[in-house]
Amino acid sequence: MRTSAIEAPAVDLELDARLAEVIAERRRRAARFSQPYVQLWDAIADIVMRGKKLRPRLLLDGYHAFGGQLDAVALDAACAIELLHVALVIHDDVIDSDDVRRGELNITGRFSADAVARGALRTRAQNWGEASSLLAGDLMLTAAHSLIAQLDVDDETRRSVLEIFDEALFVSAAGEHADVWLSMHIDDASSYDVLAMMEHKTAAYSFQAPLLLAAALAGVDINVHERLADIGTHLGVIYQLRDDVLGVFGDEETIGKSTLSDLREGKETLLIAFARAHQRWNDVAEVFGAPHLTVADSERLREIIVASGALDLVEALIADRCDRVHELIADTKLPEHLRSRLTALATYCRTRRS
Amino acid sequence: MRTSAIEAPAVDLELDARLAEVIAERRRRAARFSQPYVQLWDAIADIVMRGKKLRPRLLLDGYHAFGGQLDAVALDAACAIELLHVALVIHDDVIDSDDVRRGELNITGRFSADAVARGALRTRAQNWGEASSLLAGDLMLTAAHSLIAQLDVDDETRRSVLEIFDEALFVSAAGEHADVWLSMHIDDASSYDVLAMMEHKTAAYSFQAPLLLAAALAGVDINVHERLADIGTHLGVIYQLRDDVLGVFGDEETIGKSTLSDLREGKETLLIAFARAHQRWNDVAEVFGAPHLTVADSERLREIIVASGALDLVEALIADRCDRVHELIADTKLPEHLRSRLTALATYCRTRRS
Repeated sequence: MRTSAIEAPAVDLELDARLAEVIAERRRRAARFSQPYVQLWDAIADIVMRGKKLRPRLLLDGYHAFGGQLDAVALDAACAIELLHVALVIHDDVIDSDDVRRGELNITGRFSADAVARGALRTRAQNWGEASSLLAGDLMLTAAHSLIAQLDVDDETRRSVLEIFDEALFVSAAGEHADVWLSMHIDDASSYDVLAMMEHKTAAYSFQAPLLLAAALAGVDINVHERLADIGTHLGVIYQLRDDVLGVFGDEETIGKSTLSDLREGKETLLIAFARAHQRWNDVAEVFGAPHLTVADSERLREIIVASGALDLVEALIADRCDRVHELIADTKLPEHLRSRLTALATYCRTRRS
Repeated sequence: MRTSAIEAPAVDLELDARLAEVIAERRRRAARFSQPYVQLWDAIADIVMRGKKLRPRLLLDGYHAFGGQLDAVALDAACAIELLHVALVIHDDVIDSDDVRRGELNITGRFSADAVARGALRTRAQNWGEASSLLAGDLMLTAAHSLIAQLDVDDETRRSVLEIFDEALFVSAAGEHADVWLSMHIDDASSYDVLAMMEHKTAAYSFQAPLLLAAALAGVDINVHERLADIGTHLGVIYQLRDDVLGVFGDEETIGKSTLSDLREGKETLLIAFARAHQRWNDVAEVFGAPHLTVADSERLREIIVASGALDLVEALIADRCDRVHELIADTKLPEHLRSRLTALATYCRTRRS
């Protein structure tokens, strides 16, 4: 179900047009280098244009609700936050050694398959694919920073905006670092560690940063920022908890990936942190994170995640976070339009199926 | 031999102090996340403080020679170019799957060794090391962009500076992409391809960008920029050609790495592109790029690189580029002080032993 929070056709068209323009300008610059470099920009364009664009829409919704008028400036900031997202997703795939995202070959998969077809050794081709992804992420990060740095705003707004954007990457990197650390299982992760990791890796750049950028660009009183940051954190945690549940219990067709992959990877989620406390976890501890985990293993894991009460706990936590975010939204001087948008967004984050 | 182009103790102290301050501020911000994240910033600080700082010195030398007076602005731009360099070096190591740089464990090596010591599986630990490097590169890239975006300059200068900085990463990524492509040996590389790759990967951000940033910040006539760009290209090519020769024929102690590694990696240099044209190349084609290439194999390769005339050709090319850069330097309206610096820098690039 798509809710009103993510339906805004006119904004979508403008956003798509500006994103396409930003990428096309760089693709043109790439033409004086090499054919593979142009192909890299084509692959980047595909990813950018196919995204759900949740983050830039949130920024634009917030900006307009706050009464912002400089549409061109807000549009470029919205594009920057989407390009930052694309950079992080591409680098996340490098860290996870993934060739596929949402059921399709990612940059690593496309470039390595192409090189194999042209006669390259498989290990060299894989390295070529991963190098292409790593560079694509660097290029997206740079394109995002350039857009933000070039915003035509006064010095004070510029300082705020640069600070928010810098912090978004800084916090997200801290969260990603913690995610990989927890997945090594050197220490058993507490639910506190896992929640903090989610807030840092996802909530900060996906929900906090768009809302804070909207407020800064619209010149909203700094006192509102803290409340917006809290709302952003809750939305991000709801979004990510739903993601973790879908990763194990979702419909593979709808989510576009195997429900074995998080379990094979040993992804340290709150579901797992809770289930681990149950005595029956010992029966399955060995297969969790095993690269060759079978469908039967996954069924035993799911059964224990349910029997341990971990699934119920996570669903209760999602419901609780939703209550808290609804309270926060109600209890503010936020514009009416933004309150209804944020309410709808909380519902979307809680109920999404993909 | 260190030449006067890279000796400037007062500037060095200021540069080191500002770099240390920039990193320390971020390390403090990291403390509210996790212990491993703080350790990542400690590792970054080590790398940043131990660098040769060729690029920021060139920027500051140029800026002062052009009569620039805003020392704080130039210093921050110089730090940004150094952090960009550190980001590229760290990501280059990820692409090459290297654990060691200049004879010491790099971030990947340090973090993976630490995790193994703490009981992690070796594959997980390696992944942790590589993730740490990848994120460190992203963090350095972001720190660099933030410094550049926050420079206190007028709008026109800001536009120029942002453009130069964006282009530096864009061109370097094109060169790195070409480097990995050429190392797959799907097509035989021409000397033209290899020279273009070097200009893009190294010369653009290491020599062109510092000179162009110096000129833009000092408000130098735009007509000088093209000449500076040409000088930067030549210096970068000389630097890289010497690097390639040292990588195969250098003294391992001095260069701080094995002279087998470029040969094992199948690094596509001009030495190799020339040697490949010789009939005896067929005798060694198979061992070039072989992960288990032996010392005896490397001696045969070196013998053929010399016998083919490839080493002489590269040395002749270095000498030729030096002549051309000296002509360009002489034939300009550049300040006398900058001309002598650039001349000394050309000598350093040509004669360096590490």
